[in-house]
Amino acid sequence: MVKKYLMTPGPTPVPAAVASAQTVDMVSHRGREFHELYQYVTKTLREVVGTSHEVYLLTGSGTSAMEAAVANLTSPGEKALVIRGGHFGNRWADILKEYGVMVRAIDVEWGRAVNPKLVAERLAEDTENETRAVFTTFVDTSTGVVQDVEEIGRIVADKNALLVVDAVSGLGAVDYRMDEWNVDVTLSASQKSFMTPPGIAFMSLSGNAWKVCERAKCPRYYWDLRKCRQFGEKHETPFTPAVATLRALAKALELMMEEGLANIFARHEKMARATRAAVNALALRLFALNPADVLTVIRPPDDIGADELRGHIARTYGVVFGGGQGQLKDRIIRIAHMGAVGPFDIITAVSALEAGLADKGYVFELGVGVGAAEEIIKEM
Amino acid sequence: MVKKYLMTPGPTPVPAAVASAQTVDMVSHRGREFHELYQYVTKTLREVVGTSHEVYLLTGSGTSAMEAAVANLTSPGEKALVIRGGHFGNRWADILKEYGVMVRAIDVEWGRAVNPKLVAERLAEDTENETRAVFTTFVDTSTGVVQDVEEIGRIVADKNALLVVDAVSGLGAVDYRMDEWNVDVTLSASQKSFMTPPGIAFMSLSGNAWKVCERAKCPRYYWDLRKCRQFGEKHETPFTPAVATLRALAKALELMMEEGLANIFARHEKMARATRAAVNALALRLFALNPADVLTVIRPPDDIGADELRGHIARTYGVVFGGGQGQLKDRIIRIAHMGAVGPFDIITAVSALEAGLADKGYVFELGVGVGAAEEIIKEM
Repeated sequence: MVKKYLMTPGPTPVPAAVASAQTVDMVSHRGREFHELYQYVTKTLREVVGTSHEVYLLTGSGTSAMEAAVANLTSPGEKALVIRGGHFGNRWADILKEYGVMVRAIDVEWGRAVNPKLVAERLAEDTENETRAVFTTFVDTSTGVVQDVEEIGRIVADKNALLVVDAVSGLGAVDYRMDEWNVDVTLSASQKSFMTPPGIAFMSLSGNAWKVCERAKCPRYYWDLRKCRQFGEKHETPFTPAVATLRALAKALELMMEEGLANIFARHEKMARATRAAVNALALRLFALNPADVLTVIRPPDDIGADELRGHIARTYGVVFGGGQGQLKDRIIRIAHMGAVGPFDIITAVSALEAGLADKGYVFELGVGVGAAEEIIKEM
Repeated sequence: MVKKYLMTPGPTPVPAAVASAQTVDMVSHRGREFHELYQYVTKTLREVVGTSHEVYLLTGSGTSAMEAAVANLTSPGEKALVIRGGHFGNRWADILKEYGVMVRAIDVEWGRAVNPKLVAERLAEDTENETRAVFTTFVDTSTGVVQDVEEIGRIVADKNALLVVDAVSGLGAVDYRMDEWNVDVTLSASQKSFMTPPGIAFMSLSGNAWKVCERAKCPRYYWDLRKCRQFGEKHETPFTPAVATLRALAKALELMMEEGLANIFARHEKMARATRAAVNALALRLFALNPADVLTVIRPPDDIGADELRGHIARTYGVVFGGGQGQLKDRIIRIAHMGAVGPFDIITAVSALEAGLADKGYVFELGVGVGAAEEIIKEM
């Protein structure tokens, strides 16, 4: 038996208390018990999102909320600006094109955050103010990069455009403030920093976003946020929700509120710092120049294939890292530290990486990565 | 403490073995364990659906698969025929209109199945053969009516149209044969006869449906079945699936295969017969003239409000029935017997109904409904 350690950036490990919350007797989604569950989850999510607006629940993956954002906020032929520097930035552009929106993209080298000035320049070039919305990713899980949404929000706020943020990755582990940062739409999902199985996405809209939603012309039925708002008034969803997953999410949010958001952010920051220290001590290269605190993306040594190393570590030591997507396929290894993660998960990850590297002939002193991580960890 | 008994037509009670399958350690949706799970679930679902075609999984409610069917199989301006005799028949028409499809409807009185001859007549009127697809419900949970999909399939097969069946309700509890009945698209979901929490929908397409899917022009991204097919080849879904719910579904399918489909159908038929016998013995009226075996819809006595009676039974005795939707609001009570249901669940339902009726002053001999149900049950 090889004991397994899941260190992929979503789904992430689910604490036993959260997992077992799924096993409580099923209830109707039109009754009082569900109404209380709905209220607790949406009220608590508002706190995490940092918004005074309502949060609405969708039964679907993170991508479902991205499509919901496009279907509810755009109309065919309109113009949108997409910040594109990773797999999930590409996804924004792909969905928008599918819905007939004219996409202008700021293509950022994968591994770097966008320079917010570029956003200002692009918006300034649009002298007719025709750009309806700016779409960005908060943390792109494919590159491990975090965008400066606060600064981007400051720039977009001066214009007649909405700012739509895919915060599937990062939200709940990294400080994020929808209202304070002038974000119009924030979307996220259950399976990353929220320590919950996949199946629930959620989103919140500003007053301006609601105005656009009312007059948007793309077809939408299951995604129709106007229906979510209508049913939300009685603490229900328009269609049968993932009741068991929602109970898990409620339990996870309880744990998060017990820990406190500031403590959660500090914990992730420390885990990220410990991982990066280990990577540096092992003389490996970090992929992201603006690394997020929820995952560390590394390049393997030049003569060792990323997928070969990753597969070897998974098979031999049971530690499962993420691989590269799109143009990064077989070029990187992604070590997630989001959600239910503590210092000795980092030690496990680094130790497995060391064992795998040593097996593949990489020359270094065994334990040097772990030692560097411990230097950070022991400060606690 | 009032012990609760969930007897609503979806979500339905989840057996402990199925619920606890959700708590197994999370895995990546891009790894071998997931591949095995995917293969088992889709292969077994093909058996239940009665098809040689692949089954594809969506993370969403039943309605999500309805929208997926429309988005993948229609183009704006095309013509479709909808059999509309309940809340979910209406939903087909609503989604189609949202996507710009020209809907002709056969409006059937709620409580009756469509006369298949009407389908033949309507299709014959379309002398240009412009009707691209016929949309129907298998069992409409809002009315408890089952449609004669086999006969409708025979009629549509002669025409240049696809037959699309919403089998969210009924499939897995009532005999259904996609290929044999000439059905082109079958869709269903996890939370009714499959005894699994809500969150997963699934669908299967015939060869003709795939041809239409390739050239259809509605926008689709999260729903894109071409992506499902592409990822399905490596036993994956295009987007993060509801892994925990899928494990529950796998466990439920194992239980179903152990029991055997024929036995499951016979069990549901007997439960339905016992419930109807009780309703007749209580001199109440059945709502559906063509009742399905998965739920029994009744009209309360004239001087007792349906919602008043239902609310009283739920509050006082903990037995939760479904209420009326749309035009049937406050006019009916829906007693579900789908999925993990045995004879003494029927006895509980009937007994609670008797207690509630007696409390509200309805005159009858206590136990007469239960006795009638026992007459059927004891034959087992």
